[in-house]
Amino acid sequence: MATATMRRTQSEDRPTLPPTGIAARQLIRRGAHAGPTNGLAPGYVQGNLAILPHRLAEDFMRFCQLNPKPCPLIGVSAPGDWRLPALGEDLDIRTDLPRYRVWRDGTIADEPTDLLRWWRDDLVVFAIGCSFSFEQALIEDGIELRHFTCNCTVPMYRTTIETVPAGPFHGPLVVSMRPMKAADAIRAVQITTRFPSVHGAPVHLAKPEAIGIKDIARPDWGDPVPINDDEIPVFWACGVTPQSVIMAVKPDFCITHYPGAMLVTDRRNSEFAIM
Amino acid sequence: MATATMRRTQSEDRPTLPPTGIAARQLIRRGAHAGPTNGLAPGYVQGNLAILPHRLAEDFMRFCQLNPKPCPLIGVSAPGDWRLPALGEDLDIRTDLPRYRVWRDGTIADEPTDLLRWWRDDLVVFAIGCSFSFEQALIEDGIELRHFTCNCTVPMYRTTIETVPAGPFHGPLVVSMRPMKAADAIRAVQITTRFPSVHGAPVHLAKPEAIGIKDIARPDWGDPVPINDDEIPVFWACGVTPQSVIMAVKPDFCITHYPGAMLVTDRRNSEFAIM
Repeated sequence: MATATMRRTQSEDRPTLPPTGIAARQLIRRGAHAGPTNGLAPGYVQGNLAILPHRLAEDFMRFCQLNPKPCPLIGVSAPGDWRLPALGEDLDIRTDLPRYRVWRDGTIADEPTDLLRWWRDDLVVFAIGCSFSFEQALIEDGIELRHFTCNCTVPMYRTTIETVPAGPFHGPLVVSMRPMKAADAIRAVQITTRFPSVHGAPVHLAKPEAIGIKDIARPDWGDPVPINDDEIPVFWACGVTPQSVIMAVKPDFCITHYPGAMLVTDRRNSEFAIM
Repeated sequence: MATATMRRTQSEDRPTLPPTGIAARQLIRRGAHAGPTNGLAPGYVQGNLAILPHRLAEDFMRFCQLNPKPCPLIGVSAPGDWRLPALGEDLDIRTDLPRYRVWRDGTIADEPTDLLRWWRDDLVVFAIGCSFSFEQALIEDGIELRHFTCNCTVPMYRTTIETVPAGPFHGPLVVSMRPMKAADAIRAVQITTRFPSVHGAPVHLAKPEAIGIKDIARPDWGDPVPINDDEIPVFWACGVTPQSVIMAVKPDFCITHYPGAMLVTDRRNSEFAIM
C-alpha cells in the first residue's frame, strides 16, 4: 500500500512538460506532443527550420551570413544528413519537430508530423535562432511582453529595409514588434545585445513609418497588440524573414517547420549569451 | 643648417595640444591653458568636480552611491587631501583645473584659477564622471553628435524623475539630449552601456513629455539643437544633476569646476569600459 501510494504521488508530482531539450524531442518523436513547442523544455534554445535542396543551399547559407540579424544560423547539416549534433544528442530532424510544412513551387504540398517519406539525400538542414530565447531573458528581467499578456502571436511587419541579396535570395526584412516604456526599451537593447545568435538587439524603435510600416495596428503576420501612450514600439529582426525570402524564390522543393512547431535543442539559452 | 631645419620641422609638427592627462594638468597648473578642457588630452577621462565641507561629504557620497547614473563617482579624497592618486600622478586638485567656482550660501563668491587661498583642511574632493568619455566612443563609432555639428553646448533639461535623496541632498534628475536616428540610438545604448562610470546607458528616449520635458526646443541649460523628422531624442543622466542638487542645499561653502573647465585625469577612456 505504502509503495502504491508513493508511486501515485510520484506520478502526480512528475512535471507534465519534459524538462530538457532531448526529453522534449523524444516526446515529440514518439507522437506524444503534437502542438506548439513554446513552453516545452524551458531554458533550452528553440530554432526555426528551413530545409533546402543542395543546389540552393550554398546561396542560402551566404544569405544568412550576410543577414545575421534576421537569419542567425545556429546549425547547418551536411547534404542528406538529418543530424545536427552541435544542437542535440540523437537529434533527428526528420522526426523531432511536431509538424512540418513541405513546399512545392512555393505552395504547401503537405503538413506531415514527420519527414520520413519526404527525405532526400540532397537536402541541407538550416536551423535558425528564434526570439523565444531573448523573450525568456526579457521576462526574467521583469519586462512585460504584450503578446504574452494578450495571449496572442507577436505582431510582425514587412519593412522597407532590404536584406542583402545572395543568389536568388532577396526581399524585405520582416520585424516583430514589442511595445515598451522607454526605460524598458533601453534595458531590452542591453539584454538582447547579449544574444546575437537569436536575433540580438532591436533593429529599430519608435517611428514605425521610418521603416515603412504604415499601420502599426495591422501587422502582416501575427496579431495586433495595444501600445499605450507612454510606450514606444520596439522592432526586432524576425525569423519570418528567411521563410518569406525562401517562399519568394518558390523553390521546386523545400521544407520548413509548421508555425509555432520549432526545433527544440539541447543548448541552453544562457550558452548563447556572449557575456 | 640641416639641424636647424630639422628642429624647426619638429617644432611645427609637434601637436599644440598636450597628448596626456598629466601633460594637460601641468600646462593648466602653470597657467598656460585657461579655457575649456574639451579636446585637451584626447582619449583621457575628464571629470566634474565638487568639493564639500566634511560635514556634508558623507551624505553626498551616499547620494552619489544611490544615484550612480547622474553621479558616477570616479574619485573621492580624504578630508583636506587635495590629491586623487587613483586618477592621476602628481594631481593637485587646487591647481590643476583651469578655473573654479567658489560658492557661499548658494551664490558665486569667486571664480579663481586656483584654490590655494580657498583651501581648507575639512574639504572633501569628489570627481564625477562626465559625458566626454562616452561621446568620444560614440564619435569613434561614426555617430553624429548634433551639438558638435552645431558647435554648441549639449542641451540639458530638468526632468520629473526624482533622484533618490540622502540627507539634505535631493532634487530632479537633469538629463542631456542627443538626437539620433533609431538605429544609431540602439547602437548608442550598446556603446554607452560599456561606460557605467561616465553616466552609462541612456535613461530615456523618444517621448520627452514622459519625463516632464514640456518644450524640447527650450533646454534648461545649454543650447537647443535641431531634431530631424527621422530622429528621436535620446536622454542621458547628466553631471549637472549633482551640481543642481548641491546648489539647492545652498551649503555655506563649496567649490565646483567652472563650466567646461574639467578635471583631466591620467585614466584612459578605454580603461573605463567594462567590456
